[in-house]
Amino acid sequence: MKTNEVFKTILNRRSIRKYINREIPDSIIESILDAARWAPSGLNNQPWRFSVIKDAHIKEKLSSLTKYGKIIKNSGTCIAVFYNIPSGYNRDKDLMSIGASIQNILLASESLGIGAVWLGEILNRKEEVNSLLEIEKDNELAAVIALGYPDETPSKNRKSLESLMLKKFGKT
Amino acid sequence: MKTNEVFKTILNRRSIRKYINREIPDSIIESILDAARWAPSGLNNQPWRFSVIKDAHIKEKLSSLTKYGKIIKNSGTCIAVFYNIPSGYNRDKDLMSIGASIQNILLASESLGIGAVWLGEILNRKEEVNSLLEIEKDNELAAVIALGYPDETPSKNRKSLESLMLKKFGKT
Repeated sequence: MKTNEVFKTILNRRSIRKYINREIPDSIIESILDAARWAPSGLNNQPWRFSVIKDAHIKEKLSSLTKYGKIIKNSGTCIAVFYNIPSGYNRDKDLMSIGASIQNILLASESLGIGAVWLGEILNRKEEVNSLLEIEKDNELAAVIALGYPDETPSKNRKSLESLMLKKFGKT
Repeated sequence: MKTNEVFKTILNRRSIRKYINREIPDSIIESILDAARWAPSGLNNQPWRFSVIKDAHIKEKLSSLTKYGKIIKNSGTCIAVFYNIPSGYNRDKDLMSIGASIQNILLASESLGIGAVWLGEILNRKEEVNSLLEIEKDNELAAVIALGYPDETPSKNRKSLESLMLKKFGKT
């Protein structure tokens, strides 16, 4: 296994759900969002859009829309990621590119010492999220990322590489 | 904008479609795949599977299934990424997590000096890819990533961060 800063960040990244009570500077959030926009997308259509939620009152309301609301409430800032339908050209490919953009958010955060977790259960109430955040229907909620300075160091596990490998065609 | 190795890699990564004629060592491909498996997924379901294609004869056949075949043919190695349907729990979320895994592949490659491009047009003939690679239908082709030592330094552009921002809720 190679070790450089990128690999270390990919491997060390954890879903962080507990945060200390400390504000994340705006410059950090902006850098994280800047990383998000450099993800690849089919036809370079960049179908991602973002809403930043730092306001405690809105976070409180947002937290009522998922059973993982406590995470949102205790986070420093949330980034809601949307799929901009008019920019789309193929739902499957567009969603994968949004996943790539989210991974940039998570890795950029980790590299700056910010904990993050990708929340998906809230998609069950995506229309209500749009309504709360005053976002039109042509932007569809794809995920909410909660961010904060970490107050836990969870472990994580993965399937072995061997178990993920299908057929191999090579000279080796 | 922050600058550390992770940010540099995210920003410097380009879609590389031209490669010099040099083999990629197996240890590098293995490291790149190892990075892929550490992506996040809903319920940690890890719905990604991989097939590695290094064999020139199979690459030749694979290249006939997309109009971007020349890239595949000239690549050192291709990684076909599949969506393992039986592991899935929500197609949208599963596809986004596969996108996160693909982004790990692209960033890990970039960090090791390997050029890569995410090929999607080949999904038009996904069943034929499965057939060629002898992969059962419960694994659905999600992307083919072509890899090789770069023989070009393309530019890339993105929408401004401002144009991607929806409403902001904050104290600032």
